[in-house]
Amino acid sequence: MKNDILSLAQNLIRRPSISPDDQGCQQVIAERLEKLGFSIEWLPFNDTLNLWAKHGTTAPIFAFAGHTDVVPAGDENQWTYPPFSAEIVGDMLYGRGAADMKGSLAAMVVAAEEFVKANPNHQGTVALLITSDEEAAAKDGTVRVVETLMARGENIDYCLVGEPSSSQTLGDMVKNGRRGSLTGNLYIQGIQGHVAYPHLAENPVHKAVPFLQELTTYQWDKGNEFFPPTSLQIANIQAGTGSNNVIPGELFVQFNLRYCTEVTDDIIKNKVAEMLAKHGLKYCIEWNLSGKPFLTKLNKLVQAVVEALEKIVNISPQLDTGGGTSDARFIALMGGEVVELGPLNRTIHKVDECVSVTDLAILGKVYKSILEKLL
Amino acid sequence: MKNDILSLAQNLIRRPSISPDDQGCQQVIAERLEKLGFSIEWLPFNDTLNLWAKHGTTAPIFAFAGHTDVVPAGDENQWTYPPFSAEIVGDMLYGRGAADMKGSLAAMVVAAEEFVKANPNHQGTVALLITSDEEAAAKDGTVRVVETLMARGENIDYCLVGEPSSSQTLGDMVKNGRRGSLTGNLYIQGIQGHVAYPHLAENPVHKAVPFLQELTTYQWDKGNEFFPPTSLQIANIQAGTGSNNVIPGELFVQFNLRYCTEVTDDIIKNKVAEMLAKHGLKYCIEWNLSGKPFLTKLNKLVQAVVEALEKIVNISPQLDTGGGTSDARFIALMGGEVVELGPLNRTIHKVDECVSVTDLAILGKVYKSILEKLL
Repeated sequence: MKNDILSLAQNLIRRPSISPDDQGCQQVIAERLEKLGFSIEWLPFNDTLNLWAKHGTTAPIFAFAGHTDVVPAGDENQWTYPPFSAEIVGDMLYGRGAADMKGSLAAMVVAAEEFVKANPNHQGTVALLITSDEEAAAKDGTVRVVETLMARGENIDYCLVGEPSSSQTLGDMVKNGRRGSLTGNLYIQGIQGHVAYPHLAENPVHKAVPFLQELTTYQWDKGNEFFPPTSLQIANIQAGTGSNNVIPGELFVQFNLRYCTEVTDDIIKNKVAEMLAKHGLKYCIEWNLSGKPFLTKLNKLVQAVVEALEKIVNISPQLDTGGGTSDARFIALMGGEVVELGPLNRTIHKVDECVSVTDLAILGKVYKSILEKLL
Repeated sequence: MKNDILSLAQNLIRRPSISPDDQGCQQVIAERLEKLGFSIEWLPFNDTLNLWAKHGTTAPIFAFAGHTDVVPAGDENQWTYPPFSAEIVGDMLYGRGAADMKGSLAAMVVAAEEFVKANPNHQGTVALLITSDEEAAAKDGTVRVVETLMARGENIDYCLVGEPSSSQTLGDMVKNGRRGSLTGNLYIQGIQGHVAYPHLAENPVHKAVPFLQELTTYQWDKGNEFFPPTSLQIANIQAGTGSNNVIPGELFVQFNLRYCTEVTDDIIKNKVAEMLAKHGLKYCIEWNLSGKPFLTKLNKLVQAVVEALEKIVNISPQLDTGGGTSDARFIALMGGEVVELGPLNRTIHKVDECVSVTDLAILGKVYKSILEKLL
């Protein structure tokens, strides 16, 4: 299993599949799965390629989910080994996407293959949902596949997303939910003028400061058993013409909230509107909801994941909902159980991204074990 | 006198002397003055042309001060008459620089000429200090001439700057001082990071808000008999990478103070440093002092100006220190008396800039009368 996973991971890493360019990765996977009796369905949307592969036709549907696309390598001269050469040094496999997430993709494919070979008449369905745009816009990837499947009533019951969830050692952390992400683009209006004549102008920065004080210190909630407290950060702020003698006419503030299940996007929007009104500001605001929060409680899938990790890795994983967003937020919309389990995330999106070859082999076993428990 | 001022003003307006390009304006003036026995001294610095013309060799020195450069016309299609055609419609002379300040420059030159013709053996010295860069950088103009004159002990005792000081009607306002102008370029340091992991970052915007609240609401002073209270305005503010998921690493805030004689630039700098320290901010700051405040009290020059306006225009001018800066701030460094008196400023720096032809003729008489009172 180890060599099979490793050679597939290398094959994938050597294809420089910067989002949303798949570079043939999905074709490699589809050809392997097809040989074992998987049905192959291509679901391309615009320039994003998506693969929906299934073995079996009955419920429940267990799906591995992942992406073939990677973030750019940046300055390749800074890499110790070329980012698309898939060099192995000691136990480490180097390359862009090694940890996020061509390594776990290879482990999934091999685990699914071996499970199907060993259990040709398994109950339910083993599926793989693979996209070529998770790292960039993520508009035509998993979200569109989910829409398509839901439209025909083909809901995933259990989904394991191969995002690199581990922190210090393989399997020490499993994501069983994610916070919501909501962005506000706020434009506060003033009246432009000359700094020598402030009585003829209205400085939107000065007017906004008490509001910003409230916005940045307000405690939205205290979090709960599964989520850290909701957090707001101003990501961008801008006002001024560049000249030192002009009072700006408008202030732009962009802030992002990572919010837990104790609030909703509507509660947040209403509270911000209330603060703006309280401070007497003239403004317009555009909201952008990237994903609502979701949580998979301690039921069958989480239980299978925990048991597999305890048995094979001898570790009791921490269940966590922190960190950034992933395609899990879209899959959760189907109402099934979703967890994320993958290799260490220490080097992802960085120079010299790498993954332990041993960890990939263990991960393959864990994935296969989870399949065995659920189907 | 009226026709002489008008034709000289038109001649100057027809030369598109955008700062610091004099376009021969000073040559026109120098040739006229030289014929009447003025000594002509050219003081060019880099691309700025400066003229120092004198009639007489003894103290006191009375100088008219002005500039031949103008701000750009902007979109010429928006002008009713071409900005450099010096069109006369009714009593109004149109064109870029008509009010700021080729009109008053013409009135000064003709006033000086007529005074010298009528009083060839006047006491003291009649001088003109003319630059081609007051509107732009103002680095190689009046400030350099003042340095040169001071270095040889040739201090101006009385200076009348022809800036358009009038508000509603000619002579209703005379500037007998100006506020200081001090700009702070403040960089507040934080720690960049991902919005999903705020505990690993430090948002400089959030940290700065309480400081900004104090900075924008602090009362520096209450002004005094001659000056309005000191005023601070944030002119520019910027933080962020443009991405909605990155906590910015630095916040830039540029603020400008127009300050009166109740504070000094050192008092302001120390107070801002105290505020920054109080709020525990990591920062660096660059200060840029454009001009210290100055005040010409009610002595000989102001008295002569007031008397001339009362006699010729039948108006008692308001003495004022508000508004923007001018080259008067540099001339005041010589320790003499400095006032600004010129036409209405309603159209300056705007489309369809214009000046009343009648006002220019009256202004010439006022200027001449001031000379007669002082020399």
